[in-house]
Amino acid sequence: MRGIPESEFQERIRRIQEKLEEHNFDAYLVHSNEADQGNVRYLSDYWPLFESAGVIIPREGEPILLVGPESETFARERSKIRKVRKLLEYREPADPEYPEIAVSTFRDIFDEVSGGKGVRRLALGDYTILPMPVVEGIKEALGEKGEIVRAEWIIAELRSVKSANEIALLREAHRISELVLEDVLHRIRPGMTEREVLGVVYESMYRHGAECEAFPNYVFGGKKTRNAIGRATDEPLREGELIQLCIGARFGGYASSVGRPIIFGKMPEEIRKRVQFGLDAHRKTLEWIREGVIAGEVAVKFYEYFVEHGYAANYLYGPCHGTGIIEVEKPWMEKTSSYPLQENMTFMADTFFTSEEYGFRWEDGFRVAKDGVELFSSAHWEILEL
Amino acid sequence: MRGIPESEFQERIRRIQEKLEEHNFDAYLVHSNEADQGNVRYLSDYWPLFESAGVIIPREGEPILLVGPESETFARERSKIRKVRKLLEYREPADPEYPEIAVSTFRDIFDEVSGGKGVRRLALGDYTILPMPVVEGIKEALGEKGEIVRAEWIIAELRSVKSANEIALLREAHRISELVLEDVLHRIRPGMTEREVLGVVYESMYRHGAECEAFPNYVFGGKKTRNAIGRATDEPLREGELIQLCIGARFGGYASSVGRPIIFGKMPEEIRKRVQFGLDAHRKTLEWIREGVIAGEVAVKFYEYFVEHGYAANYLYGPCHGTGIIEVEKPWMEKTSSYPLQENMTFMADTFFTSEEYGFRWEDGFRVAKDGVELFSSAHWEILEL
Repeated sequence: MRGIPESEFQERIRRIQEKLEEHNFDAYLVHSNEADQGNVRYLSDYWPLFESAGVIIPREGEPILLVGPESETFARERSKIRKVRKLLEYREPADPEYPEIAVSTFRDIFDEVSGGKGVRRLALGDYTILPMPVVEGIKEALGEKGEIVRAEWIIAELRSVKSANEIALLREAHRISELVLEDVLHRIRPGMTEREVLGVVYESMYRHGAECEAFPNYVFGGKKTRNAIGRATDEPLREGELIQLCIGARFGGYASSVGRPIIFGKMPEEIRKRVQFGLDAHRKTLEWIREGVIAGEVAVKFYEYFVEHGYAANYLYGPCHGTGIIEVEKPWMEKTSSYPLQENMTFMADTFFTSEEYGFRWEDGFRVAKDGVELFSSAHWEILEL
Repeated sequence: MRGIPESEFQERIRRIQEKLEEHNFDAYLVHSNEADQGNVRYLSDYWPLFESAGVIIPREGEPILLVGPESETFARERSKIRKVRKLLEYREPADPEYPEIAVSTFRDIFDEVSGGKGVRRLALGDYTILPMPVVEGIKEALGEKGEIVRAEWIIAELRSVKSANEIALLREAHRISELVLEDVLHRIRPGMTEREVLGVVYESMYRHGAECEAFPNYVFGGKKTRNAIGRATDEPLREGELIQLCIGARFGGYASSVGRPIIFGKMPEEIRKRVQFGLDAHRKTLEWIREGVIAGEVAVKFYEYFVEHGYAANYLYGPCHGTGIIEVEKPWMEKTSSYPLQENMTFMADTFFTSEEYGFRWEDGFRVAKDGVELFSSAHWEILEL
């Protein structure tokens, strides 16, 4: 299987339409851009680049994929949603005018999805990435009597519990990342730049059948390992310094990440102690998880585990975040998380440890099972000395 | 030289402050995300991933780089702006709460940049990518008496004419893309999947010293070459089918793209005729350009060139778009473009030809000179039969 079957996309649309009916919304609008393809990919299998995209689902009838003026042929090639319309609101940030390309307006779209009756109560599935042109386009088309309601929960709920197909794709994405990790462990050498190694990561990832990288993968050494978020640089990797790898492939639209700290030569005793502590905390998290457990309780235990071992100052966040189409998606597992874990919710166990001189991350994907977890990756849970 | 020197970043800030003074703005706010890093990179050298980022420049005094809760150490490592503050408005789209991380609010930021006097008249440097949380955050902090003014022109004007350093980086980015093109022409084989070739592109790109890819590079064959925008798939490349390569490296923050149609074996006569026409149109565009020419006149001539040769139906847009930090940035060169070309404006000549069965693109970067253009790439302007 290389992707989600068409019937499952239709099922997703149908389930959203049930919620629209239940909550008296006329339509649901989601948004995606090149960096966050989540909701549009979930509903149409299309993922934008350069331009952005949206999907509008009416309470009844066919959804429409909304794209920018240059994306029509690519969108029709990929989209599981039959209707595709071009709107200037989804054009590139460089704001071209495209004088030759005929486009629709949100008014046309609202007419089309409502059979001419108009949209009055519009539910929004994205808020954190919704850009001004789309906001103003929909406000103008809705008019004064229209109503916009934030309803990210509708699609977030759907996306948070994965189907059998989604889980199969997540397993494969992680399997590819583990294969890439093996390749990299064989090919990485002191003196290579971080970016050179990143090139090795991507060559291997595409060769093993990945759709693309799940995020700009991490290869960095020395003090840069303190970065919870970072990018590879043109500095060379050095012996005796901690090096962080986070290898994440995407497959069939689903993301993975396998995070491992490694070192050339013998790991100094103090570093080794801490890296081992991180791996122990990582294992503990996975022991605490099963269906029915309140997410926040796992987060509290994880923090306490840091405190008990004298590492409170080395804690930044944790221990898990949702994963699926996007490597980091809702829901997070934080101290404030009051929801119960459900079977087939999928997360990254993301055990990050920071200090003044270095940091590291153990990261692996898993699904919540009735009596524990199913790990998607667990290769090289060991002190990795090359 | 591997990047823009610190003094040039200070000069950019100073020039924006002059405009703020002239137009009576209290501060200027720009925004970037992982997919469009333009304005934040231009002002700070920082480029976000996962989270987004902003820069606020007060009329007088120091600017501040605004990042999400997880990006602080990475931002401090990269930023040429000394002050870095964390705001929840710039967190990941997955909306974590980060109960342990202390953050600032826009009210704190406005107080800090104004020395406690407050910001009343805020100019915005981004609109097409400005997301709702930032819009609402600034509205709340400005209060009822505050004013928000779209002023993308301030930074767009600055960015559109390049400095000697910027041009040096654009030259190097294109030089790397040409090296990658050579590697790919040697290593590509019938039967490789499009994505496998993409892996070869990236391995070569990072090995030759690129910072990263300038955009998700294009490798696609057959009917998919009709896509003005598209992505590599897992389909194999076949003999006798047109294949589109667009290879674009980023170096020191600056983008490149080298677009070439290629084929395994002999190019069928009808395709050859059209590909040669495209290359002729590409050359013509570059002949028409020099300082002082009105951009729209070049676009009209380009369209007429298609019409005269009987290819009106094969025209989609063209002939050039601005390039710099982003591979596609302002200004575009369209029929409606009334501005005169200035020395050291930089563009991509982007000659796209579409038809029912296939399409292709010739693409190369250049700068406008007093009496013509300086091309950044021009390797393999020929019928490429492998």
